[in-house]
Amino acid sequence: MAMAGASTATSVASAHLCGLRCPSILSRHQPHAVAASVALTHISTFITSSSSAPKFSPLNCSASSSRVLSRHCGGAQFKSGELAGKFSWRSFGVTDGTGVKFAGFGAGNAGFGSRVLWGQKFSVNATLAETEISKEQKNSSGDGDKSQFALSVPAFQKRLRIADIKGGPDEGLGRVGEKMVVRGWVRTCRVQKTFSFIEVNDGSTLSNLQAVVQSDVEGYDTIESGLVTTGASVALEGELIESQGSKQKVELKATKVTLIGGSDATTFPVQKKKLTREYLRTIAHMRPRTNTFGAVARVRNALAYATHQFFQEKGFVWVASPIITASDCEGAGEQFCVTTLIPNSHLDPKTKVSDIPATKDGVLDWSQDFFGKPAFLTVSGQLNAEIYATSLCDVYTFGPTFRAENSNTSRHLAEFWMIEPELAFSDLKDDMACATAFLKYVVKHILENCKEDMDFFDKWVEKGIIARLQAVAEKDFIHITYTDAVDLLTKTKKKFEFPVKWGCDLQSEHERYLTEEAFKGSPVIVTDYPKDIKAFYMRENEDGKTVAAMDVLVPRVGELIGGSQREERLDKLEARIEELGLSKESYWWYLDLRRYGTVPHAGFGLGFERLVQFATGIENIRDVIPFPRTPGSAEF
Amino acid sequence: MAMAGASTATSVASAHLCGLRCPSILSRHQPHAVAASVALTHISTFITSSSSAPKFSPLNCSASSSRVLSRHCGGAQFKSGELAGKFSWRSFGVTDGTGVKFAGFGAGNAGFGSRVLWGQKFSVNATLAETEISKEQKNSSGDGDKSQFALSVPAFQKRLRIADIKGGPDEGLGRVGEKMVVRGWVRTCRVQKTFSFIEVNDGSTLSNLQAVVQSDVEGYDTIESGLVTTGASVALEGELIESQGSKQKVELKATKVTLIGGSDATTFPVQKKKLTREYLRTIAHMRPRTNTFGAVARVRNALAYATHQFFQEKGFVWVASPIITASDCEGAGEQFCVTTLIPNSHLDPKTKVSDIPATKDGVLDWSQDFFGKPAFLTVSGQLNAEIYATSLCDVYTFGPTFRAENSNTSRHLAEFWMIEPELAFSDLKDDMACATAFLKYVVKHILENCKEDMDFFDKWVEKGIIARLQAVAEKDFIHITYTDAVDLLTKTKKKFEFPVKWGCDLQSEHERYLTEEAFKGSPVIVTDYPKDIKAFYMRENEDGKTVAAMDVLVPRVGELIGGSQREERLDKLEARIEELGLSKESYWWYLDLRRYGTVPHAGFGLGFERLVQFATGIENIRDVIPFPRTPGSAEF
Repeated sequence: MAMAGASTATSVASAHLCGLRCPSILSRHQPHAVAASVALTHISTFITSSSSAPKFSPLNCSASSSRVLSRHCGGAQFKSGELAGKFSWRSFGVTDGTGVKFAGFGAGNAGFGSRVLWGQKFSVNATLAETEISKEQKNSSGDGDKSQFALSVPAFQKRLRIADIKGGPDEGLGRVGEKMVVRGWVRTCRVQKTFSFIEVNDGSTLSNLQAVVQSDVEGYDTIESGLVTTGASVALEGELIESQGSKQKVELKATKVTLIGGSDATTFPVQKKKLTREYLRTIAHMRPRTNTFGAVARVRNALAYATHQFFQEKGFVWVASPIITASDCEGAGEQFCVTTLIPNSHLDPKTKVSDIPATKDGVLDWSQDFFGKPAFLTVSGQLNAEIYATSLCDVYTFGPTFRAENSNTSRHLAEFWMIEPELAFSDLKDDMACATAFLKYVVKHILENCKEDMDFFDKWVEKGIIARLQAVAEKDFIHITYTDAVDLLTKTKKKFEFPVKWGCDLQSEHERYLTEEAFKGSPVIVTDYPKDIKAFYMRENEDGKTVAAMDVLVPRVGELIGGSQREERLDKLEARIEELGLSKESYWWYLDLRRYGTVPHAGFGLGFERLVQFATGIENIRDVIPFPRTPGSAEF
Repeated sequence: MAMAGASTATSVASAHLCGLRCPSILSRHQPHAVAASVALTHISTFITSSSSAPKFSPLNCSASSSRVLSRHCGGAQFKSGELAGKFSWRSFGVTDGTGVKFAGFGAGNAGFGSRVLWGQKFSVNATLAETEISKEQKNSSGDGDKSQFALSVPAFQKRLRIADIKGGPDEGLGRVGEKMVVRGWVRTCRVQKTFSFIEVNDGSTLSNLQAVVQSDVEGYDTIESGLVTTGASVALEGELIESQGSKQKVELKATKVTLIGGSDATTFPVQKKKLTREYLRTIAHMRPRTNTFGAVARVRNALAYATHQFFQEKGFVWVASPIITASDCEGAGEQFCVTTLIPNSHLDPKTKVSDIPATKDGVLDWSQDFFGKPAFLTVSGQLNAEIYATSLCDVYTFGPTFRAENSNTSRHLAEFWMIEPELAFSDLKDDMACATAFLKYVVKHILENCKEDMDFFDKWVEKGIIARLQAVAEKDFIHITYTDAVDLLTKTKKKFEFPVKWGCDLQSEHERYLTEEAFKGSPVIVTDYPKDIKAFYMRENEDGKTVAAMDVLVPRVGELIGGSQREERLDKLEARIEELGLSKESYWWYLDLRRYGTVPHAGFGLGFERLVQFATGIENIRDVIPFPRTPGSAEF
């Protein structure tokens, strides 16, 4: 037993608590044990033995201050408090109700502005400790002297989230009386005379957890000194109680407040006041901390997972379609070039044109490019998905696609995620049925699983969105041919900006009229479009004029899904490629799919961000993707 | 009642069978009813009425041939057969045991080499027909005259897959006696004197379904005439019976064989003979039809879905990290440039250097580029994930990332998928725990859910792989510090190509020695690497020399996962950025995360294709991604 610097004490405590031999921990820490310029002088008892025999001994640290923090870790007890002078120290990280999660020492000056943590955190779990000893013994007997190096990995536990506390149907009442630690970011801190309210959010739910902190609670000084500001991160320890207020069922009666990271109230960019979406786009690194963008992120996540669940439950195989491709697949369309010919452009944007490799006649020397020829970002994974559909039958892609179109609209992104299922032994009817079932599935999923966020959108973003989505989940989808749709549109009294006639593509106003007015909110599937306005790969109908294409139109958004039965007849497909002046050679592999065991197949494409817009009511597509890429904008 | 061309008959039949008014179908088909140059003359009875009243009448078509195909569709009966002369016709698409899935006419010349399908397929479902009538009536009463256009969308049914038939633990015995239709591609067709065996595969399982086809079965002529070749697509109707053979528990007693798409045996590129993986890479559009690549696709899919399940069950939010980025995030590293400055490169690779926009002094004019400045393909989504972790706590990315490194190895791709979880309020121990739990979860998932494919890999690709993976699922992961690992490596008698000393990165041979030999097949997590060989964002340990980094090493692969606790202390992070000569300005938003409510957080990155290699035993990473991108190769 001997006195030593506190960080050594930490290491030793860690070693003993875990019951492991610890030459590595000691060797790592000892040389630097007193490196931090903090002198702790009030530790009364501790152990410095570096013996490798596991041993459990209480580690007692008393402090000079009258406010005592107490923490149990694997049988050892820490007592800490404030030191005289400009330094404070405490243990941080605490039980989460299921055992001690982690613990550690922190120290810094009282202002926390330039807080420096110097204590290495260490993982301790009372219930794990013994298990780990036996593991250790097992290793010792088995692997000979290698085991002296072997530490063990703790079990992964789901962090206690605010959603777990109050996200259930009882809004938390079932957990009343539980002791817990909640970690998150302060949304508001209202200081009263003898107590304060802290609203904390950890992003797992829209609503905050309110903590009531009496002024005699440990750590209250951080509130009094104005450090617990909006945006700061905190750990709140306490007991869950029934709330007195009407806004929530439960609240936390705090027994301890720990400031983790401060947030300068004068510069924090996401203050409580209403911020425009335009402004928030310029701080895309902070906007997920707002109610709206937090909710969008959660609903977007739910839609993505529901997408995987829908297809996986039905035996579809997810296929990673390529992002970079030298195939010129849809016959032009604005694509981004991917190249290594522009040297050092990431280090210095002042690359000279003369630095770009060229042949004698001034033509770009693609042989010096990474891929040896021009390569581009994909505009669609469909043709690749067809490869897998014609071997695995039912597949889907879910990945990013790109358009270099200079479209500064609320519906266009240069980079967006696409979902593209492809079904073998299927025709347009199967395709429609699949699209319908998919849309109903994901909409039901978020209505059932994202209630709080959907209520928020219904109240603040688009009044009536829940009813609109319920209609999609419940109403029959209407099927109408393009020819009939044109008929209907020309017969209605409604005036359109763009006149309708057979052979023209439907405009957004026409699409919305069909789904919103003509069919009163039912989604509408329009099929059998003129072949001249559709892609070369769509299956020609017998009339020779139309193709087996479909668009799914939904209220407010218009076209959400576009699909088709693919031309599986080799001669028809070749004729169409020639007719359109495309190169048969570029499509050699696509044609092979028709040459060897061709099958009727169909699929559709769904822009995932359009789906998120549709499901949240958010007007601008730039606000439903974490980091939107648009003309002139690729920040973050 | 009147005689007409067969395609009109088809349309009318469709309309009546569905019980829907059908002006649109008729208007689409009638003008072109006899467009196809096929004259069918033996139709005895049918209906041409275009009345909109739903009506059910049998449609009888008899044929000149003695071999009669018979098809029931919603109460109507089709009889078809071979016509005299060079054309044959038949109905294709049949019941799948749950009702009539779809039906249609096909016609073409007897050789099938240039077979032309001219009959529009139509969806008919006996059990649906009545439902649809009531829907129709509902629509009529509700929406006034709009309803005359409204058709309805059939319900989506999961296609009957071979996996559904024989993929269960009873290998299909529970379905013996069921009548069904199986669709897929012929793997082999063995013609005997009075019967044939057809092995068909639909990609849902590794093993085929064997069909026994007696010579008196409808469609046997296609077998006799040699059209049912390897690679051809077929529909096989029949009854599931117990197999006489020992290789499978069940087989299909066919009552009908329908050739869907032929496959020229002389040119089909995936013949039965053993093909090299190198060759198969040149036909990436055909290789998923082989046993190996089908199995890889299924296991890859299972790993991807298990990844989502693991994180979603634990409350993580999937975040789409950006693909294109103008941020220069890891401080160089080989990146692909994404640009629109090279005009028309997708149409004509002969772009001249002089066509590239430049300023007067010959510098590339980035203001004319799509993003207004140099932009690149991302090398990692981690920094973006940290944004979401510091607002939503637990997040993960799963998306493509890119390296323009000229590495022609079996472990490198220019385009690969990464999984990058990021955990707030977490340290390196939590990170290790999460990586361990994740790896055990996905490995268990495939061992439980991909048994047949894993047996295949164990037998043909890497003997012992199942035992190797079981060890990962069951054994404790070993934790060892870098310093101890170096100690251990220098003390061992084993000779390495690269000498080991403190401060150097571990080579693959060292990593594999640790996990395979020193710790006998247990995965090993090495932590606390020298800071000089790790990225700037990793959290500095107290010793000032090492950082809180970890690598997870697994047998055979070596490093599979790399992670770290992130430096959450603003002053430390700024100092490190300056020390490394990076630009603080480029990281303004990353530093903001430490400025406002900073929290301890940690995460890791896992190259998904490395995981697939690890889980399948496939040697070359180009064989575990559908369309590998490597130097000189971006085909398909």
